[in-house]
Amino acid sequence: MGGMLLQSPRGTRDWLPEEAYVKRLVSEKIRKVFESYGYGEIITPAFEYLELLKAKAGEEVVNQIYYFKDKAGRELGLRFEMTTPIARIVASKPDLAKPIRFYYIQPVWRYEEPQRGRLREFWQAGIELFGVAGPEGDAEVVAVTYDALTESGVQEFEISVNDRRVVEDILLSNSVAQERLPDALRILDKLDKFGESYIIDEFEKIGVAREKSSQMLIKLKESRLDIELSTPEGKQGLDHLSRVVDLLKSVYGVNVKVDYSIVRGLGYYTGFVFEVKPKTSSDVGSIAGGGRYDDLVSTLGGPKLPATGMAIGVDRLLEVLKLQGKPTITYNEVDVYIIPLAKKQETVAKAVEIAKKLRREGLKVIVEGTDRSLAKALEYASKKGSRFVIIIGEKELSSGTLTIRDMKEWVEHKLQEEKALEMIINSRT
Amino acid sequence: MGGMLLQSPRGTRDWLPEEAYVKRLVSEKIRKVFESYGYGEIITPAFEYLELLKAKAGEEVVNQIYYFKDKAGRELGLRFEMTTPIARIVASKPDLAKPIRFYYIQPVWRYEEPQRGRLREFWQAGIELFGVAGPEGDAEVVAVTYDALTESGVQEFEISVNDRRVVEDILLSNSVAQERLPDALRILDKLDKFGESYIIDEFEKIGVAREKSSQMLIKLKESRLDIELSTPEGKQGLDHLSRVVDLLKSVYGVNVKVDYSIVRGLGYYTGFVFEVKPKTSSDVGSIAGGGRYDDLVSTLGGPKLPATGMAIGVDRLLEVLKLQGKPTITYNEVDVYIIPLAKKQETVAKAVEIAKKLRREGLKVIVEGTDRSLAKALEYASKKGSRFVIIIGEKELSSGTLTIRDMKEWVEHKLQEEKALEMIINSRT
Repeated sequence: MGGMLLQSPRGTRDWLPEEAYVKRLVSEKIRKVFESYGYGEIITPAFEYLELLKAKAGEEVVNQIYYFKDKAGRELGLRFEMTTPIARIVASKPDLAKPIRFYYIQPVWRYEEPQRGRLREFWQAGIELFGVAGPEGDAEVVAVTYDALTESGVQEFEISVNDRRVVEDILLSNSVAQERLPDALRILDKLDKFGESYIIDEFEKIGVAREKSSQMLIKLKESRLDIELSTPEGKQGLDHLSRVVDLLKSVYGVNVKVDYSIVRGLGYYTGFVFEVKPKTSSDVGSIAGGGRYDDLVSTLGGPKLPATGMAIGVDRLLEVLKLQGKPTITYNEVDVYIIPLAKKQETVAKAVEIAKKLRREGLKVIVEGTDRSLAKALEYASKKGSRFVIIIGEKELSSGTLTIRDMKEWVEHKLQEEKALEMIINSRT
Repeated sequence: MGGMLLQSPRGTRDWLPEEAYVKRLVSEKIRKVFESYGYGEIITPAFEYLELLKAKAGEEVVNQIYYFKDKAGRELGLRFEMTTPIARIVASKPDLAKPIRFYYIQPVWRYEEPQRGRLREFWQAGIELFGVAGPEGDAEVVAVTYDALTESGVQEFEISVNDRRVVEDILLSNSVAQERLPDALRILDKLDKFGESYIIDEFEKIGVAREKSSQMLIKLKESRLDIELSTPEGKQGLDHLSRVVDLLKSVYGVNVKVDYSIVRGLGYYTGFVFEVKPKTSSDVGSIAGGGRYDDLVSTLGGPKLPATGMAIGVDRLLEVLKLQGKPTITYNEVDVYIIPLAKKQETVAKAVEIAKKLRREGLKVIVEGTDRSLAKALEYASKKGSRFVIIIGEKELSSGTLTIRDMKEWVEHKLQEEKALEMIINSRT
């Protein structure tokens, strides 16, 4: 077999025990916050019918996902986010009591160029709140995001908020044609990545004069809540946004920055949108984002149901935590290593008996199962970071004692079995 | 959108909060056992290069998996089990200290006819132990399986053990040709499902006389450890198997049943194999199984490394637990429901403040965010199983009190805020 086959497929990675442990530690902190707000976990299949994935994301989504057919010719695609599958569930179960609060911590897949903190398989931890039309819903979703990120240990992040209706008003007022709005939003989504001159060039291609684009960019950058808008939708959006910002500040104590240039990539957003970036290590990109999608459930054939959701990019969050020197964890796979000498049935039986007792106390215990020398076994125990090694030979068996090496304090004890176990159990930090 | 699109793809399912909660509860019990034996978690991508999946499972594996190409034409397949991906990691990292103990709790995908307790996407919780050649390794893996299943709460299960070398010896001694061994094993694997006459018919097709097959089936069913075998491999297998059985009984206190007809489906097993079935509700099929695969790592290009592994079928286990009336859990998404009257900023602010305090104590709290009537909100809180409802209006604000409805005791209290919170926190079971 070639060496390439020993690698995980392009754009994916393996998580070894220490990495998986840190991921789980952070995920469990986030999960606890989600559940404290009354959100319940949802698990959906890795793939969905392609038709569903296309419903809101459009035909071109096929180019950005892993697409395939099953043996019966059904067109399927690996899910590229969790909002659509969850909206499918909500649309199919009209009897669920509203509002509905769902969360997930799951991998998703996108066929994009692998980049820093974002592979083709990556993990999202997010929530979806269905059935709250007012700014209270958006404020809650941002507050949950804030609490989850804070609990994860990440320092210094900035939450930028916007309402799509406000940007759309500004675009329309600056000579973007109604039918060019989707294009304009798509271009604007690249502002952060490619800069202003890119936007001006691209807008010119869709018929917007360069001066108009410059004026528009100034308005977007100012992001003033006292701006004069011209469309009813824009005015509604501005009012909604102001109330979200106010609720977050005065009720939740969460400060956010208004930024009219935030549009978010996904097509289903209908109003409020937000994203979160770390203040340091901002080249990792946004670590969370979301918004309101009031039409998705009804588009799928369900009832008209307002909704707001968000997702935290777990891989990026872990990347930022690492850059910030966190979390400081001590991970060890084993606490006590037991070596039965000569591998006689009696010594092995005693080793297993001791192991059972210690495991019951919550300790991680390995019993040596190979024929290697005591020296080799000790070297291994040390490599694995085991705090204690227990050696059991004929002498120990006949005298009812255990020989214990404390690998941290670098001392050896010979103790009666009961005393020995007590010492080990009490040494736990 | 059609109704079909509101379903999860054929052979898959969604997990709603209560189901996801039970799954997680059971998974975490299993995880704790795995970790108590010094196993560390591994997470691998959902898909692998097809070449890797074919390495041991053969060309025909393509018919049993979800197979696709990425946009660069690379052939990929959703993993159908976790042993091969983990063996890939071990083969690619020769520096890992041996023995290696890895575990996983992950979904896998097989393109088979969906059946009871086994869909096309299903979850496995398993371990892999690399680097222990002797029966101690197999005994440990079976002991971990026993402990994990016991901790999960499943009652009355039976562990059947065998060694492939023993069956192969018996098959060869009953006129199965050497080159027909793989076919014979594949046929025998169906004994449980299709019965003896099927085996006799199929064996006749590969050149085994019906009397021979009958004799063979008698030997397989007797499963005597004092059987006379003819090949050196058979004798080795019998010796190894006897020692595993003895270790399990006398060292681990785990009783197993020897059954020479157990062969396990997967192609990579080289010796010891085992499977676990519930004594009641046995129509669900086996809930765990595994065995020794000493050649897999070297086949993939890694070092020669003996290994034993096992996987628990989480979905089937949950099915059996359900049939056995377990686990008896009380799941509620919310403990306290807070309703700010009239949705004024002051009442909402107080509601959020109270929610924060209760969440910090580990309670699940929802703040009503819609404009609906008090009656409707109360009905919802009751439907969600909230133990307490807190109502906050002008009166409560000005007097510093909270109105609390105890939905279980069916009483209403008006208490000073501090007293009220104390009562709620102390009511937790």
